[in-house]
Parts: sequence; structure tokens; C-alpha cells
Amino acid sequence: MERINLFDKLRVDTEPCRSIKETISKIKPINKEVMKKARERLDNLTKPLGSLGRIEEIAERISGIKGHLTPVIKQKVIFILAGDHGVVAEGVSAYPVEVTAQMVYNFAGGGAGINVLARHVGARIIVVDMGVATDLEPRPEIVNKKVAYGTKNIARGPAMSYEQAIQSIKTGMELVEDELSRGVDIIGTGDMGIGNTTSSSAITAAITGTDVREVTGRGTGIDDAILEHKIEVIRQALEINQPNPRDLIDTLAKVGGFEIGGLVGVILAGAAHQLPVVLDGFIVGAAGLIAYSLAPQVKDYLFAAHCSVERGHKIILDKMGLEPLFDLELRLGEGTGAALGIGIIEAATKILNEMATFEEASVSKKL
Amino acid sequence: MERINLFDKLRVDTEPCRSIKETISKIKPINKEVMKKARERLDNLTKPLGSLGRIEEIAERISGIKGHLTPVIKQKVIFILAGDHGVVAEGVSAYPVEVTAQMVYNFAGGGAGINVLARHVGARIIVVDMGVATDLEPRPEIVNKKVAYGTKNIARGPAMSYEQAIQSIKTGMELVEDELSRGVDIIGTGDMGIGNTTSSSAITAAITGTDVREVTGRGTGIDDAILEHKIEVIRQALEINQPNPRDLIDTLAKVGGFEIGGLVGVILAGAAHQLPVVLDGFIVGAAGLIAYSLAPQVKDYLFAAHCSVERGHKIILDKMGLEPLFDLELRLGEGTGAALGIGIIEAATKILNEMATFEEASVSKKL
Repeated sequence: MERINLFDKLRVDTEPCRSIKETISKIKPINKEVMKKARERLDNLTKPLGSLGRIEEIAERISGIKGHLTPVIKQKVIFILAGDHGVVAEGVSAYPVEVTAQMVYNFAGGGAGINVLARHVGARIIVVDMGVATDLEPRPEIVNKKVAYGTKNIARGPAMSYEQAIQSIKTGMELVEDELSRGVDIIGTGDMGIGNTTSSSAITAAITGTDVREVTGRGTGIDDAILEHKIEVIRQALEINQPNPRDLIDTLAKVGGFEIGGLVGVILAGAAHQLPVVLDGFIVGAAGLIAYSLAPQVKDYLFAAHCSVERGHKIILDKMGLEPLFDLELRLGEGTGAALGIGIIEAATKILNEMATFEEASVSKKL
Repeated sequence: MERINLFDKLRVDTEPCRSIKETISKIKPINKEVMKKARERLDNLTKPLGSLGRIEEIAERISGIKGHLTPVIKQKVIFILAGDHGVVAEGVSAYPVEVTAQMVYNFAGGGAGINVLARHVGARIIVVDMGVATDLEPRPEIVNKKVAYGTKNIARGPAMSYEQAIQSIKTGMELVEDELSRGVDIIGTGDMGIGNTTSSSAITAAITGTDVREVTGRGTGIDDAILEHKIEVIRQALEINQPNPRDLIDTLAKVGGFEIGGLVGVILAGAAHQLPVVLDGFIVGAAGLIAYSLAPQVKDYLFAAHCSVERGHKIILDKMGLEPLFDLELRLGEGTGAALGIGIIEAATKILNEMATFEEASVSKKL
């Protein structure tokens, strides 16, 4: 709570800033009474006590989030936010900058990894241009919320203005709100942006105080020499910009990205609307870390789908106290891990809803 | 191969024994040529090289198993084999013996954990009475393959005869063969049997030579005192029966169970028919260990869905060199972990089949 006040004090109470504060104020503690009843029900289902392990914990928490003993996960929505990063000019990525736009078209065309996995779990996807470096062809599958044509190069100065940082968060919040009328039971999160592991490492180092080397990985697949260079670039970005880790909007503005800001908004708004939010990998994790630092109460709404190969991700998860559901050595992003996580979470709620009790099935209880 | 010869030499070449040998002889090496092509295709899909981690490895192996570059996982079948254990008379379980039969009815009625999770992943289940202690009402959902009315108490003598051990394996093989005409793309495995962690611990200790304490857990939820007693009972069973770890049929007969023998048969026949077999937890693991010891080449067909809370399971997986797909702290059995594993494996094959290549999606390749 201190941090919310802090970012209030640092800047005038502008309208966009107020709406972030309002959203945060709507994030209520999850319903412990309902969780207790869900636990009682789980304990009466035809299985040894606690024998479905974390599946039971998930079911219990979903009950608490939705305030309902038999919560339903049917309408699944994965937000894939895309943005470009000026820091790519420093040669930190294995892929050229135009791949961000090309992959957005790939999402629109249904051929990317996230398309396959979202279809597999029955989720719809919302593809958003938060700040791709070029103008994209207007297509019904692409939501245009461009804040700017990519961030500026963080190795030389701030990624964006403070106002743009607020705008990107606010945009993410609006994306969720715009989707509510179509029905949303769970939110998955995904990212696309060449160069965004560089930004995410900078955010993670700034907020957690961890050495840059410990939070920097190979992204899309750089070699040792480029990795060393990437570490130097991130150190330079932190040195030049001096992000204030106690003002999260400042951190986002100095070394963040438009898609990362948007994801902060998606996460905060999801929690504010009592929706479970499934985090994907490292980039979404960096957004989650900002959201958590702004509003620690968001944590109870978050599920970490997996632990990414990107080494900074584990540091983020530890900082937030989240235990990933699985580790399949993913490092693709796009929400691919979140999609698989949604499948497991849906299964958990079905356990709560569909399994028979000892009494219903006439099964003897423990001796 | 030495072991197959060994069990041949130990006993006359009876007809049932011959059919096990024949099935084993049909387990061919998986198709490395097709796997190479699958790897090439995976490397050309629109994602950084290897960025879907183990999902890619799964897809590649499924290609090799099925000998097809675009394998399809559509028809999913989970075999749930049930049997009772005479050793329950020693007070080693938290639940009374009648729960085995009651749970079989629960499977037939659709109210158990495995019913929920099998429906979730779109798998059909085959519920089999391999050796429940009582006569079950005839129901279309229950396949009656009863070898005997439960095993004998292994703390006093062998669980079953050598012939019954062969019969249980052969029955498992037939279950798979009977199902082939209905269409099977992947096999999941599950167990039900009060007392069967005791049997599985004895099998694991006998085959791996690990100390009984290291492979014995709390099963359905016993306290410290009963756990100590369970360890003593297993030690006694091994002492009295002296199972020969080089004759796997002997080990199964001395300390096994009818459902465990049946699962050995399901696993061997699945591999013989070029089907991926998804292992569940500790009990299926013990069956997998017997199958693997009889025919090491079966390993390439096996997927370990998860690592069970039952401590012996990790020792089994290490022995077989299998890395579980996830660890959700499950210890229910019934095939619940296998069901969730099937969902992940199906997703992996869809990646291979449905994702666009760089060329198809006009996405630039690595710099």
C-alpha cells in the first residue's frame, strides 16, 4: 500500500493515474469463507485426503477468487500483447525487429504456437498492438492500441514517458473491461516483442536488486558473446536511467515496454474483476512483478503456469512467492505456458464440481 | 534380452508364456528417421529454436513411436485395472478392503477423480476387475477379467502362483488388443487396489535393491506408527518369499498384484502396437519397472506423466531414466496423472501438426 501512495505523491493525480488507483482499490481479498467450504467439499470427495495435491489447492483458490463453491472455468481468454523495443538497435536479440510485426500477423492467421495451444484448451485469444514499431494492416483479429512506434533505446535514455507508462497500464485494464461483456472466467497472459527479455531483465534487476547477470538469459537464442554484451547493455540502461524501484511507474517508463505496461494493466484489472490470472513466462513475470509491487494483494489471483528457461523468471517467482504448475523448459512466450496452465486449472475446478462424495458414491471412509 | 531368456529358461515354454515373449519380440526400436524429419520440421516452425522445450521432445518422440511425421492423438484410452491385496489383513492401509470394489462402481458411475480428468482430456476409460476380492455386479462399464479373489497375504507367502502372474500379464495384453479395433492413438494407465502401494514398494525394493524404507510411503494416508509397521511387513514379505529379481515373473508372483501384472501386459502390448503409453504414479510405475526389466526397449514408448508423492516412485523413474512431465504432488492413482499427461502430449503433437513454418507465415529467421 505504501507504494501506491508513493506513486500518487510523486505525480499529480491525473485522470489516468486515478483510474489505476481505482482499479487497485477494487482488488479485494479472496473469499476465505468459500475456500473453507471448498476445502470441506474436497475432503469429502472419493479420494484419500489431499491426494490430488496441488490440483486441490488450485480448486480451493479458484473458489476463493470467484467467491463460489462450484466455480466454472468455461470462457477462457488469452491476451497477447505486442510491442517493439528500441534497445534492439544495440544488437541484443537473435531475431530482427520486424519479427514482432510478422508474428502479430502469424497470431492473426492462426499459425503460431499460442494459436495451437489456445485452441487445444478452448481459449480465445486477443492480439493487441501495444507498440509495434510499424503500422500494421488493419485486421479484425488485431486490436490496435498502439501507444507509440516501439520504445526508445533504454541504453541511451528512458523507454517511454511517465505518461506513456500510465497509458500502457490503463490500456491493459481497458482490454480486460472491454472483454467482460463477452464472458470471461479466466485470463491468460502472453507477450510478443523482439528485445523484450532485455527490458524484462532490467525491470527484474531494478525491482529486486539482483545483479544483472543473475536475471539475464539467452532470450530467443543468443550466443555467449552476445549474452555478455546484453548484460552490459542492461547495466548501462540501469546506470543511465536510474529507475526508482519504489516508483513502479517510473521503472516501467525507464526500462519497460508498452506490452509489459499493458500486461500490468491486464493483471490488475483481472484481479479487480475477481478473475484468476494465469501468468506465462519471464516477460509476463516482469509485468506481474510490477503489478505485485504496486498491489501485493494481487498475488492471490495469480497462477504461475511454468518456470521459464530464462533465468530471471525463477527470481521473479521467488520474489512473488508463486510456485509454478510445471516446468517443461519453455521459453517461447506468447502465452504458450499460460495456455497449458489454463488446461490444468480448468481440470482442477472440474474436480470440485464433478467428483462424487463418499456418501454419493457409497464409498467407505478412512478407517 | 538376457532377462527374457532367463524367464524362458526358468519355466517350460507354456502357451501363455510364449505369448508374452511374442509380444516383447514385437516391440521395435522407434523410427529414428522419422524423428529426424520431425526435428527438422520443429526447427522450421515459427518459434525460436527449441523454445518449446520438452513439448518439442514429446512431439519428436511421438513421431518416432508412430513412424509418422504428423502423428495424431485423437483416440485416447485409459485402462484402470483393479485388484485386491491379501496383505491388507496386516493393517497396512488407511482404508478398508471393500473400498476397491466400491471405487470400481464409482468408476462405472462416472464420479471418481479419473472420470473427471479423463472427460477433461477426452479419453475413454476401460475399467477392469483383475482381481477384486468380491464378485462385482455385472455392469457394461466393468470388464470382468478376474484372475482370483484378491492376492494372498504376501507377509505369509506368495501373492499368487507363477501361472497366475503370467495370466495377469497376458490379460493386460489382451485388453489392449481387444481395444485396437475401436481405435487407439495413445494409452493411459491407472490402478485401483487397497494395499497396492505395499505390493509396489516390495516390487521396487526387490528389483532395484533399494532399502525398503526408501521406497515405502504413506499410501492413502497412514500415520507414522502404521508406516513403520508397513515397512516391517514389506521386509517380512521379501524375507519369506525371496523374490528372484532376475526373474520378473517370479517377483510379480511373490509380491505383486493382479492389477500390477495386468498393467505390465498393457504396457508391453501398447509398445508392441506402436502406441505411446503414459504411466501414472507409483503402482503403474512398479508395473512399468517390471515391463522395462523384461524388455528395456519398451522405454522409448513410455511417458512418465508425473512424479508421485509416494517416495518409491522417484527411484523407479530414475532407474528407468524417465523424466516426469510435471509434479503436482499427486498420490491418488486411478490414472489421474496419466490423464493430465495425455492432455500435454496431445498438445505437443498439435504443435507439430498445426503450427506454421517461417516460410508459410512469412516470418524472418534468425539473424
